[in-house]
Amino acid sequence: MPKLSQRAFKKLQKIVGKKNCTNAPEDLVCYAYDATAARFLPEAVIFPETKEQVSRVMALADRERFAVIPRGSGSGMTGGSLAVKGGVVMALVKLNRIIDIDAENMTARVEPGLITGKFQKTVESMGLFYPPDPSSSDFSTIGGNVAECAGGPRAIKYGVTRDYVLGLEAVLPSGKMIRTGVNTTKGVVGYDLTRLLTGSEGTLAVIVEITLRLLPLPEQVRTMTAMFADMKDAAKAVSEIIRRKIIPRALEYMDNASITCVEKGLGLGLPVDADAMLFIQVDGTQTENEAALEKLAAICSEKGAARIRTAETPEDVETLWKARKAISPSLYAIAPDKINEDIVVPRSKIPDMIEKIRSIGKDTGLTIASFGHAGDGNIHVNIMLDKKDESQAKAAKKALDALFDETLRLGGTISGEHGVGITKLPYLSKELGREEIELMKKIKALFDPNGILNPGKIFPETTG
Amino acid sequence: MPKLSQRAFKKLQKIVGKKNCTNAPEDLVCYAYDATAARFLPEAVIFPETKEQVSRVMALADRERFAVIPRGSGSGMTGGSLAVKGGVVMALVKLNRIIDIDAENMTARVEPGLITGKFQKTVESMGLFYPPDPSSSDFSTIGGNVAECAGGPRAIKYGVTRDYVLGLEAVLPSGKMIRTGVNTTKGVVGYDLTRLLTGSEGTLAVIVEITLRLLPLPEQVRTMTAMFADMKDAAKAVSEIIRRKIIPRALEYMDNASITCVEKGLGLGLPVDADAMLFIQVDGTQTENEAALEKLAAICSEKGAARIRTAETPEDVETLWKARKAISPSLYAIAPDKINEDIVVPRSKIPDMIEKIRSIGKDTGLTIASFGHAGDGNIHVNIMLDKKDESQAKAAKKALDALFDETLRLGGTISGEHGVGITKLPYLSKELGREEIELMKKIKALFDPNGILNPGKIFPETTG
Repeated sequence: MPKLSQRAFKKLQKIVGKKNCTNAPEDLVCYAYDATAARFLPEAVIFPETKEQVSRVMALADRERFAVIPRGSGSGMTGGSLAVKGGVVMALVKLNRIIDIDAENMTARVEPGLITGKFQKTVESMGLFYPPDPSSSDFSTIGGNVAECAGGPRAIKYGVTRDYVLGLEAVLPSGKMIRTGVNTTKGVVGYDLTRLLTGSEGTLAVIVEITLRLLPLPEQVRTMTAMFADMKDAAKAVSEIIRRKIIPRALEYMDNASITCVEKGLGLGLPVDADAMLFIQVDGTQTENEAALEKLAAICSEKGAARIRTAETPEDVETLWKARKAISPSLYAIAPDKINEDIVVPRSKIPDMIEKIRSIGKDTGLTIASFGHAGDGNIHVNIMLDKKDESQAKAAKKALDALFDETLRLGGTISGEHGVGITKLPYLSKELGREEIELMKKIKALFDPNGILNPGKIFPETTG
Repeated sequence: MPKLSQRAFKKLQKIVGKKNCTNAPEDLVCYAYDATAARFLPEAVIFPETKEQVSRVMALADRERFAVIPRGSGSGMTGGSLAVKGGVVMALVKLNRIIDIDAENMTARVEPGLITGKFQKTVESMGLFYPPDPSSSDFSTIGGNVAECAGGPRAIKYGVTRDYVLGLEAVLPSGKMIRTGVNTTKGVVGYDLTRLLTGSEGTLAVIVEITLRLLPLPEQVRTMTAMFADMKDAAKAVSEIIRRKIIPRALEYMDNASITCVEKGLGLGLPVDADAMLFIQVDGTQTENEAALEKLAAICSEKGAARIRTAETPEDVETLWKARKAISPSLYAIAPDKINEDIVVPRSKIPDMIEKIRSIGKDTGLTIASFGHAGDGNIHVNIMLDKKDESQAKAAKKALDALFDETLRLGGTISGEHGVGITKLPYLSKELGREEIELMKKIKALFDPNGILNPGKIFPETTG
């Protein structure tokens, strides 16, 4: 990509205002990272305050041929918001309003920079419910969630972000604005641009407004945990729960490495001797929940759970969630670096996958901690290493290859909720065929003929 | 489009076999229609038996430049499967296998020509549930349902066809095969081609295999009806039901014209004096259903329902559903022709819409019967007329314009589940902007550069 000229930078300042446009090195550093370990310094960072500004910036970028990288909170796991080819990071944090919540029709219109957790709390205070709940929800933005099609633990019962996006307003790389979708559940006029943009990782258009579907807030949520001396028994319990037609709100698991790290870090009294822990939430009326918890406890103990505990107080629940949310950062106790994958396999294949992960760990000599959304087959596999150690880096690469191969062999996908970005880009052709990749690259070129929007992502040799 | 040459016809015979390829006038007539009143004679009809045959036919068509029109059962409401530019109708009825039902992972792989109702019954016998249920489900195909993104009464609780399609195998107009999507709820590798093809009305690719998500079959379904002396009260009851956080499995209504027609036709003892009838279904456990029915009855009577009846026997339910499903055909008692629209408005706007429909009826002097999926705002508006009467045809055109204008003014969409096809093509630009239409046409050209796949649909001046 050509560098951002001084002239273009001045024009950017004019569009978004001087206070919303910077190329000071100390500012650029703050927008060079995301939740991966990679760092790429942008040439400028801007903070547009209106969608018209977004449109004018894109038109300028398209004329002057500099890259624009849309960004929410930078909590992405695959490098989607990194300026890998230089250019301008467009932080959408100032476009963060809740425009409207229509309680009667259970829809909301929001701007992309809105923090997901803030939105959840707001609608919940009105008796409404926005189910998608990525672990990052306290700081990630709705716009980022839509761009990546974020998932989270509630997907097993409630689906993923895609299932709640009814319509979008977006700015094309040319600067032109489009409106996609509808305000209602049904709507089939023309091609589904809404879902084409959802999960497109900010490579097709900049999302500037989102219409979301909401649900009634469930009356009550109940939480339980079950400890297992053997991970395979935990996996069997997961299968049996679904086979018995119980669809919990969350059905999560942690392996021993995860339990141990969290316990070391937080001292919550977790059983470090357990091989696996299931973390289960149900929601509904009190009667429904009590019936479900009873069945769940029976299944878990039938499958050999050593200890089953139902959270009785809000503090109990808080502690349990704290443990679950703390896993990812706690793992750094094992090693300084982490490759965090989010593979998915059909639920019934979880025992096979767990087995394979263990054998990959043994073969490569690396500690692999796994935890995640057992209920929908989405496993966060964390390969722990010291990247400075060349032999470990090599072993990690080998582990990753083996992991992805097994995932695909079992009928799964190499990314359930993190996207491709740059970290999975080398593996894209493991999952997708040449024809499918060609088609996607043509769609990219159709939306972005000059390759200025978030270049270098998803596809091995994309435009730009 | 160029005509189908005799040479090309012979090649088609060679690909699909003589018994699966016809140009006999008596056969062509049988594939010249769908559920609209329009008729277009194709030049040939073929019945491929494998996806490889579909692929070879498309490659031939692309080389020889003849049109191919994919077709399920021809039950579409907007002309999507009609050979408006001549060419070859590709009836997919022989690709009708259930390839696999994976009960443990609650997924199924099916071929496009499978009858939806047959699939529903099969999975239900295994304790599983495929919720999308268009009124045509006894004869329409899954492939057609996916191509149109079919809806139906259960969308209020369970969403539409799109929400159950996990992955597709499809043949591009070039004859090349692609696989889209995953086997799991989560999956975000590359652009969402699955949802781009879903609802694309057979204009982008021929779907040859579908992976569907299933749910556990609800324990029990209960049904009730409520009669209202004033349609506005029925609309208020609908709003109140949702406001009170009850999401029924179906929340349907019939206006007086619909009730009267069904009663005349079937003599089921429906109250022809009622201004509106609500038809409500709930599903869940017996306890849940009883609690819901009690609340629903209270709301309906609070809003002025004259009579509330709960179906106590399977025969009762059968009678009620029979009434609901018979509305569309029964309306021909009013007039020989019908323009059947499927507009959607935000639920809270239903009273406004009903009011407007009444005033359009008065203004144009035409009988307009409306019924449909009140719960999700999807109203089937039936403008009854005698098309041979020029003044009535003119009035109907005026009614349609007014209907669509009001729908969009209220924040709705001109098609909830029927698609655009040819009947709504003239109105496309009422709902979509120039930029959006241009983008969609470019996507069409990208998939189908020679414009051979289902030409003349959706867009006013598409290729071919």
